[in-house]
Amino acid sequence: MKTSQYFLPVLKDAPSEASTASHRWMLQSGMIQSTVSGIYTWLPLGLRVLKKIKTIIRQEQNAIGAIEMLAPTLQPATLWQESGRYDDYGLEMLRVNDRHKRLLVYGPTAEEVFVDVVRRCIQSYKAFPLNLYNIQWKFRDEVRPRFGVMRGREFLMKDGYSFDLTPQASKETYCKVFRSYMRAFYRMGLSVIPLRANTGPIGGDFSHEFHVVAKTGESALYYDSVLENRTPPRFEISDFEEVYAMVDEKHLPEQCRVPAEQLKIARGIEVGHIFHFGDKYSSSMNAQVSSKNGEVVNLQMGSYGIGVSRLVGAIIEAFHDEAGPQWPLSISPFSLGIIHIQENLESKAEDLYCKVKDLGIETLWEDRPLSPGEKFALMDMLGLPFQAILSEKNQKNSQIEVKVRKTGERYCFSLDKFLEWLHLNCSEQISLPETIKT
Amino acid sequence: MKTSQYFLPVLKDAPSEASTASHRWMLQSGMIQSTVSGIYTWLPLGLRVLKKIKTIIRQEQNAIGAIEMLAPTLQPATLWQESGRYDDYGLEMLRVNDRHKRLLVYGPTAEEVFVDVVRRCIQSYKAFPLNLYNIQWKFRDEVRPRFGVMRGREFLMKDGYSFDLTPQASKETYCKVFRSYMRAFYRMGLSVIPLRANTGPIGGDFSHEFHVVAKTGESALYYDSVLENRTPPRFEISDFEEVYAMVDEKHLPEQCRVPAEQLKIARGIEVGHIFHFGDKYSSSMNAQVSSKNGEVVNLQMGSYGIGVSRLVGAIIEAFHDEAGPQWPLSISPFSLGIIHIQENLESKAEDLYCKVKDLGIETLWEDRPLSPGEKFALMDMLGLPFQAILSEKNQKNSQIEVKVRKTGERYCFSLDKFLEWLHLNCSEQISLPETIKT
Repeated sequence: MKTSQYFLPVLKDAPSEASTASHRWMLQSGMIQSTVSGIYTWLPLGLRVLKKIKTIIRQEQNAIGAIEMLAPTLQPATLWQESGRYDDYGLEMLRVNDRHKRLLVYGPTAEEVFVDVVRRCIQSYKAFPLNLYNIQWKFRDEVRPRFGVMRGREFLMKDGYSFDLTPQASKETYCKVFRSYMRAFYRMGLSVIPLRANTGPIGGDFSHEFHVVAKTGESALYYDSVLENRTPPRFEISDFEEVYAMVDEKHLPEQCRVPAEQLKIARGIEVGHIFHFGDKYSSSMNAQVSSKNGEVVNLQMGSYGIGVSRLVGAIIEAFHDEAGPQWPLSISPFSLGIIHIQENLESKAEDLYCKVKDLGIETLWEDRPLSPGEKFALMDMLGLPFQAILSEKNQKNSQIEVKVRKTGERYCFSLDKFLEWLHLNCSEQISLPETIKT
Repeated sequence: MKTSQYFLPVLKDAPSEASTASHRWMLQSGMIQSTVSGIYTWLPLGLRVLKKIKTIIRQEQNAIGAIEMLAPTLQPATLWQESGRYDDYGLEMLRVNDRHKRLLVYGPTAEEVFVDVVRRCIQSYKAFPLNLYNIQWKFRDEVRPRFGVMRGREFLMKDGYSFDLTPQASKETYCKVFRSYMRAFYRMGLSVIPLRANTGPIGGDFSHEFHVVAKTGESALYYDSVLENRTPPRFEISDFEEVYAMVDEKHLPEQCRVPAEQLKIARGIEVGHIFHFGDKYSSSMNAQVSSKNGEVVNLQMGSYGIGVSRLVGAIIEAFHDEAGPQWPLSISPFSLGIIHIQENLESKAEDLYCKVKDLGIETLWEDRPLSPGEKFALMDMLGLPFQAILSEKNQKNSQIEVKVRKTGERYCFSLDKFLEWLHLNCSEQISLPETIKT
């Protein structure tokens, strides 16, 4: 993509409403624009990141046999009355009367809709287990939206719902989803801590939250510091079972047996939350099936959420410096940025741009007549993992300069060597241990 | 995909609420489920079709330089008051007060939001032309939702907005989008007629509707029958300019110079609508820019919509028989269905399933123990372009039977020949004339 043909409305200065790094950089680097309090328009650059996160989540969900579908954003209030949750969400749930005065809600989550879908189709126990998910916009009418997409009102969520015949099978599904979440976060370059959590209005018997550790996190985390010494990647729930890791409300100092000097207290950003709640919804909403031996049983359920739009902010909180975000390759809007310092290098830059595109590498070429300083600052603010810099000085030696955004490392290569290096570094996505590849 | 591991809740009988073929088959073949009047949940099979349509549209939009972004579903009412359209939509526009009593609307379209995005970023005329689009859920509170997704309330729309510096440039953009629409519909296997149309509440100076001709269409179309004799594909607006083609409201018998015997009157399903409206929104909403010679000009705009979810229904209306839909390959949920008649052929079927998957061809294997009659009926109802049928009779001769869903043709092949035939037929997507490939 050439910036002259792109829509990249960056801001010169940090916007005054931004109180966190991610909020600032998402506004300033032209990823989002605030449409009204807590509701954002995703500009082209931001949408690219959002889509890449969706793709990773989708791949990991499909890999464990979860099946994608799509619930509507608006749901009938009657379903919420039936489950008994209509009042639980209070003012956070956006309620609206349609023209016939039928009450709809903008889904803050979709347990009821998924239970309704499944119960209307049940013919035999043979259809189970079922693990269904969707990635859809949700709404929670926060009293004070803040931190940009981190605590917005309209937000994109991956929410999944599992239906099993027995509590044991249901817990195994929960463990599978746990693993798929850890894998997905890992592929986004994130080091995420799973902690035991309360179930809140979703209900249920156990629950984990997934947190990115960041100073600007809204939640307090309490965990055994051995967690930090473990060799990543550890994806199985069993890897964490014996280790103390609690969110704020769940941490009871009098019950915590971790020695004080070993207890880590940190701030975290919640990016995922999973619940196992057995038959809470299937009993109230009559989602039953005759088992193999003829007994009528309530379906055993879990529900599983990832804050997709929030992750964009969380990743910036985890990876940025004073010049802008530092995108991990797997979710970066583009892999490479190209700038040419002198205007007479335009055709050289165009040639490089075409060659890199031919390799299938997503590239953004700053082809507008900006000053060198503006180009350098823009590229750092965009945060693409690699920058190729063409200057007269290096061209004399037929060299291309490369800058690695995260480390600041610089290399000089001939064109051929550069293409080889780039190809290697861009195809080398974070590799997962062979044994658990799916 | 194996059906035993899929979520494919088909219905035995035609649902009583379905009054059109597409509504019937979408419900019966497990593509959608009605959540509440005019609001649907997209089940896995339906979502696959929806996504393929999105992909084709996206590719054709990107090919003309349009840039994807994403507006929120909820918009501030203030923007609509500013453009003067707040009252135009009447009861069709869903209005909701948030917890602070600020009025939001669920976007039925997004002219205002896109104008707002662009006017807040304008720094120079050099940023133009701009052609932006998004694919997002919209809501129109139809008084009587009907025909399934064809006239639903929550629906998926691709809507795009172009911003040019001069009326001439804006009209050229309009023509480009016209062409991209014709290409997209063509790639979906559709023969679509573009007709001159009124602009309605969107406003503007000229407009085209794109219609699929179908007996169940809600609109009356009047066009010169020479249109039907033209060799497809014709993608340019100039190919249609001289030919009479009007939607109902635009057809004035006294002004129509087409001889009566040559005038075709048909029913159509509107799948796209484009508008050129100059500065209607840019003047009311102050989207101005200083041109090269210092003059302040209003941006010239067009807006362009495709009914993405409606297209799923329209394609079924165009392609079905009494047994179910007949999906064009490019948007079919799977390319091949596999059934084995006798249970002892299960391992043979699995072997075939794996081999076809290895070719990268999307395949659905009915691996559940249904009767042969049930399997045949299910496959026809799913409407996948090709079926592979394994039976003891053919296995004796080491043959696989193939059925082409649309024509009913049947062939027998050896395994190797079958894979070769399938590969050829599945990679042979509808080809576009070389000259206008992008």
